[in-house]
Amino acid sequence: MPEREFAMTHRPPLSAFAGAAPALVDAATGRRPADLVVRNGIWANVHSGEMIAGTDIAVKDGRFAYCGPDARHAIGPDTIVVDAAGRFLVPGLCDAHMHVESGMVTVTEFCRAVIPHGTTSMFIDPHEIANVLGLAGVRLMHDEAMVQPVNVWVQMPSCVPSAPGLEEGGAELGAAEIAEAMAWPGIIGLGEVMNFPGVVANDPVMTGAIEATRRAGKTVGGHYASPDLGLPFHGYVAGGPEDDHEGTRMEDAAARVRQGMKAMLRLGSAWYDVASQIRAVTEMGLDPRHFILCTDDCHSGTLVRDGHMDRVVRHAIRQGLKPITAIQMATLNTAEHFGLAREIGSIAPGRRADFLLVSNLAELTIDAVYARGVLMAEGGTLVADLPAYPYPAEAKGTVRLGKQLSAADFAVAAPEGANAATVRVIGVVENQAPTKALTATLSVRDGLVEADEDQGVAHIALVERHRASGDVTNAFVSGFGYRGRMAMASTVAHDSHHMIVVGTDRETMALAANRLGAVGGGVVFFADGEEKAVIEMPIAGLMSDERAEIVAEKADRLIAAMQEAGCRLNNAYMQHSLLALVVIPSLRISDKGLVDVDRFEIVDLFV
Amino acid sequence: MPEREFAMTHRPPLSAFAGAAPALVDAATGRRPADLVVRNGIWANVHSGEMIAGTDIAVKDGRFAYCGPDARHAIGPDTIVVDAAGRFLVPGLCDAHMHVESGMVTVTEFCRAVIPHGTTSMFIDPHEIANVLGLAGVRLMHDEAMVQPVNVWVQMPSCVPSAPGLEEGGAELGAAEIAEAMAWPGIIGLGEVMNFPGVVANDPVMTGAIEATRRAGKTVGGHYASPDLGLPFHGYVAGGPEDDHEGTRMEDAAARVRQGMKAMLRLGSAWYDVASQIRAVTEMGLDPRHFILCTDDCHSGTLVRDGHMDRVVRHAIRQGLKPITAIQMATLNTAEHFGLAREIGSIAPGRRADFLLVSNLAELTIDAVYARGVLMAEGGTLVADLPAYPYPAEAKGTVRLGKQLSAADFAVAAPEGANAATVRVIGVVENQAPTKALTATLSVRDGLVEADEDQGVAHIALVERHRASGDVTNAFVSGFGYRGRMAMASTVAHDSHHMIVVGTDRETMALAANRLGAVGGGVVFFADGEEKAVIEMPIAGLMSDERAEIVAEKADRLIAAMQEAGCRLNNAYMQHSLLALVVIPSLRISDKGLVDVDRFEIVDLFV
Repeated sequence: MPEREFAMTHRPPLSAFAGAAPALVDAATGRRPADLVVRNGIWANVHSGEMIAGTDIAVKDGRFAYCGPDARHAIGPDTIVVDAAGRFLVPGLCDAHMHVESGMVTVTEFCRAVIPHGTTSMFIDPHEIANVLGLAGVRLMHDEAMVQPVNVWVQMPSCVPSAPGLEEGGAELGAAEIAEAMAWPGIIGLGEVMNFPGVVANDPVMTGAIEATRRAGKTVGGHYASPDLGLPFHGYVAGGPEDDHEGTRMEDAAARVRQGMKAMLRLGSAWYDVASQIRAVTEMGLDPRHFILCTDDCHSGTLVRDGHMDRVVRHAIRQGLKPITAIQMATLNTAEHFGLAREIGSIAPGRRADFLLVSNLAELTIDAVYARGVLMAEGGTLVADLPAYPYPAEAKGTVRLGKQLSAADFAVAAPEGANAATVRVIGVVENQAPTKALTATLSVRDGLVEADEDQGVAHIALVERHRASGDVTNAFVSGFGYRGRMAMASTVAHDSHHMIVVGTDRETMALAANRLGAVGGGVVFFADGEEKAVIEMPIAGLMSDERAEIVAEKADRLIAAMQEAGCRLNNAYMQHSLLALVVIPSLRISDKGLVDVDRFEIVDLFV
Repeated sequence: MPEREFAMTHRPPLSAFAGAAPALVDAATGRRPADLVVRNGIWANVHSGEMIAGTDIAVKDGRFAYCGPDARHAIGPDTIVVDAAGRFLVPGLCDAHMHVESGMVTVTEFCRAVIPHGTTSMFIDPHEIANVLGLAGVRLMHDEAMVQPVNVWVQMPSCVPSAPGLEEGGAELGAAEIAEAMAWPGIIGLGEVMNFPGVVANDPVMTGAIEATRRAGKTVGGHYASPDLGLPFHGYVAGGPEDDHEGTRMEDAAARVRQGMKAMLRLGSAWYDVASQIRAVTEMGLDPRHFILCTDDCHSGTLVRDGHMDRVVRHAIRQGLKPITAIQMATLNTAEHFGLAREIGSIAPGRRADFLLVSNLAELTIDAVYARGVLMAEGGTLVADLPAYPYPAEAKGTVRLGKQLSAADFAVAAPEGANAATVRVIGVVENQAPTKALTATLSVRDGLVEADEDQGVAHIALVERHRASGDVTNAFVSGFGYRGRMAMASTVAHDSHHMIVVGTDRETMALAANRLGAVGGGVVFFADGEEKAVIEMPIAGLMSDERAEIVAEKADRLIAAMQEAGCRLNNAYMQHSLLALVVIPSLRISDKGLVDVDRFEIVDLFV
C-alpha cells in the first residue's frame, strides 16, 4: 500500500527505507556485515501465519536485512551474534490506540514502563492534554514522541471539546488546527471521532476534520459509543471513521468489520472488551485480518504489575485464538491499518528491527526486547538508556481555581420549602464506561440537599479550573460506596479535565479541592480531615514527571485510601475520572450542568 | 492505511471521498435519496469473509452509502431500484498487474472487452509503449486510463530498457523520469522491477527508481524471474520490491509471502501459475491475505472468448479455494496492496460502487456489472457507452526499417570453409516463458548456415526498427515446428519491440518484414509467397485501434496460418513475441546479438 516514508527524526537515528536499502541488500547478500545476527529462532511469521523453526535474522542500520535459514554470511568481526536457542522471534507489539495520559506519566516514562513488556509501537491520542493546552499541548507530546527509541505515532485529537455546547474545557480545536497538524511528521491520523452524533449530522467541524485527514492520506480513528447498530451506526460509517474501539459485544465487532472498519478490541486497566468481541472470530468464524488489539487506557499500576500489550495478547490467546492470530492482531493488522506495514508489524526485510525473544508462546513470556536492532530490555528490565524528558514551564501551573473554595461552594439548595428532594443521580457501573441515569430522593437539611450514605449517594462537583472562574457544578453520584467523611478530587476529569470532586462531606470536599489546586493538579484523597493520598501531576494537571513505578506506588496509596473509606469498586479511580465524559451514556456532569448523554442535552438536577 | 485521495479526473465524474462523505451520510440515514438501491442480495463480504444473505445496498454519487439489511429508507422517487433476487453481490474484480498492450488494443478497447467479465479495476504497466515512445508513451496511456469509466491505475515502467547493455530499444527511462512520473495523478507505483540482478547489485538506476517510488509513498512492483531462492532472492527482497508474479512453484509463493512480499499468482493467455502456487494456501495452509490474482498478459482472443479476471477467480476456486477467499485475492487483497482499500476492493460504505451481480458463485456467473454505481454490462454484454479514444499521429508510424530488406539480410555466414556448423539454438518450451539454450549442427550451403526442418530449427532474426539503422541480428530457433516456406514477423517483440522474424526461408522473411514495416507494425504471416494473416497495430507498432473482437478474429486467422504451417504449439504467437525478452532465461536474441540470460552476457552464435 502507498505509505509515507518517514524522515527519521526518531532516535536512535534511523534512515528512511529508501536511503537504507543498499546497505540492507549488502547485508542480505553478505557483502557487508550485519550489525546484529540472531540465530536459530522460531519465526512468528505474521505474513504467512506460520511458525518457522531454524530461522536466522540479520539486522543492518536498524532494519531487518535478512530473514531465513542461515545468516552466517552476514556475520562480520563487529557483528553482535545472539543465540535464540529455539525461542520464538515475535514482532514488537503495537498498541493501536491509547492515551499516554492515562498512565499519568510522560511519553518517555510510559515508554520506559512498556518496552520491557514488548511494546515497540504506540499510536497515542493526546486528547487529554489537548483539552487543557490545545494544539500547543499536542505538539509538546508529539515532539516528545518523535525522540523515543521506540515508535510513537500521534493521532490528532478530533473532538476538543468532546461535546461542544455541553462543556467548555481549556481549549478548542477546529478543522483548521486539525488540518495544520496533519502536516506534522509524527501525526498518523485523526484520533477517535467521539462526536458520533456530529458525524451523523454532518457537523462541519467533524466533516472538516475527517476531510483534512483523508486529504492528507491518513487514517480516521473512530469511537462509536452506542449500542445502536441501526441507521445512526450506518450514518457514522458512511462519514469516514475507519476503526472503532467502543464495541463491547460480539455483534459490535462483527458489525464493524462487515462495514469495512477495523474492530479494535480493548483491554485496558478498566476495559474488558476483548473476551466478548473476539467470539466474532472464535465462534462466528470471521476473518481475523481486520481485528486489532489495543489498550486505550492503562494506569501506571497496570503497566508496572500486569503489563501492556503482552497482557492483551496473552488474554486474547486465552480466549481461544491461535497465538499467531493474536500476534497478528497486535502487529501486522495494526501496521496495515495505519499504512505502516513497510515500517513495522512484522519480522521481514526492510522493516524496523523491532522484535521480541519469547520463550513461551502461549504465555508470551518475553525474554528480550529489541527496537531498531538495539537491545532495549531483558527479563522484564529495561537495559536501554531513556533520559527523562523535561516539559516547559508553560505546561505546568494549569490548575486555576480563582479562589479558595469552601463548603458552601458544594452546597445544593433544595427547592423552596422542600424537606426532601428527588434528584438525578449518576449511577456508576463496575467495569463499564457507561453510567446509569438514576434518581434518588434525598433529605433536605437547612435548605440543602444532603448526600445519603445508606442509599450510597454522595456529592459530586465539577470545579471549573481552566479559566479561574470559581464556578462549581454540583450533583449526586452513587455506586462508590463511600462511608464516613471523605472527599476525592481529581483534575484528571475526561475530557474537559476540570476538577471532579466526589465526597460525602462538603468541608472535606473544599479541603481536597484547595489542596489539589496547590499542587498543580493530579489526585488527592482526604478522610477525616487528613490527606490520605496524593498523586501530583504538574504537567497540565494530567501527568506526573516521575517514573511509572513511583506513580503506581502513590496510586496504590490512593486505592488503599478509597477502600478504607468503603469503596469496593474495581478501578474506582477510573470511574471517578470519567464522570465528566459527556460523550458516553447515560448521565454525566460538566461545567454547564448535568448532561443526559443519550439525548445530548443539559438536564435539571431535580426530577 | 494512509492512502492518497484521488482527485477525480475519472469519468463519470467521481468526487474524492472527502467531498462526497456528507451526501453518503445523508443517503445512509435516509435524509437524501440514493441514486441506486439493490435489494435482497447475498453480500460477498471480503472484510469478514462471510456471505451475508438478505443484504440491501444503497449508492450515492458513485459510492456505496449503505450496506445492510434494509435500504428502503434510501429509496426516493428517482432512485433506481434493482432486485438482486438472492443473487450474490461481489466486489468488482481487480487485475493487480497487467499489460494492456498484450491485448493488442488501446486501454479503452481493453476496458470494453473486460468490463463484461467483471473487471472494474486494473493496474496496468505500459512497459511496452515505454520501450518504443519513452515517457511520452507512458503519458499517452496514463491519460487514456484516467478517463475510463472503470478504475485504471498505471504502474510506471521501471526497466526501460529491460536489460541495459544487452539491448537498445526505442527509449530509455532513468531515475529522473521515474521520479517525475510519480507525481502524475494516475501513477500508483513502480512497475515490475525486472532487472533483478541490478537490484541485488545496487545498480543506481534501480536503487533510484525504488527510492523515488518509496519517497512518493507508492508501491514497488517486483519481478524476480529466477528459481533461486537463496541469497540473490534475499538480496532482491531487501532492495524493496513488494510483490512478485514470476513465481511458478508452491515454494515460490510461500517464500515471497514469508518475506513480506505479496505473491501475485498469474493466469494469463500463456501463464498458468495459479494452480501450483495456490497450494501454498490449500495444502501448506498459509494465510491467504497476501496472495493476489492477476493476468499479466492476455490476448484479445482470451478476453473475447475466455474472460479476464473472472476466468482467474473461477480457476482459483476450481483449485480448491473457498469462493470468498478467491474473491478476496482479486479484490480486497489487491486494494490493500496498493493502498486503495478506501476506494475499491469491497462492498462497503465510502468505496466506489463497483460490484457484480453473480447468479452462480462457484462458476462466477456474472449477470451484471456496475462501476461507480452505473450499470456497465448485462449478461456479458457491455451496455455503457465507451467512445473510442484517438491516439495522436506521433504515436503512429514508429516502424523505421531504414531500407527494403532482402533475403541476404537474413543470411548467416558459416565459418570459413565449413560444410556444417554447430550453433546455439533458442529452444521454445510450450506454455513456459523461459527458453532452453540448445545447440544444433546445421548444414552449410553456399557458405550459409541453413535452417533444418527435420531438426525443427528455423531462422530467427531481430530487425532493428527504432533508429532505421537497417541492422539485422540473425540466429536460430527451435520448437515451433514450422514446415514449408514460411515467415512470421512481429513488432511486438518484448521488451525492446524491434521486429522479430521467424522463418524457414530467407526470401519469405524479407517479404514479411517489409510488409510489416509498410503497415506500421503488428504481426504478419507469409507462406508460399502469400500473406496469410495480418494484424495491423499502428499505435507504436504494439496496439491496434480496432475493437478486441476484430483483433481476435485477425489473431484467429494468424493462429490458423501458423497451424497450417505446422506449428502445433499452444500460444505460439506469445512465444514468438517473447524471443527477444532478454530478462527471462535462458537464451534470447537482441539487437546486440544472442543473449545468455543466465549469465547476462552476449554469446557467440557458433559454439
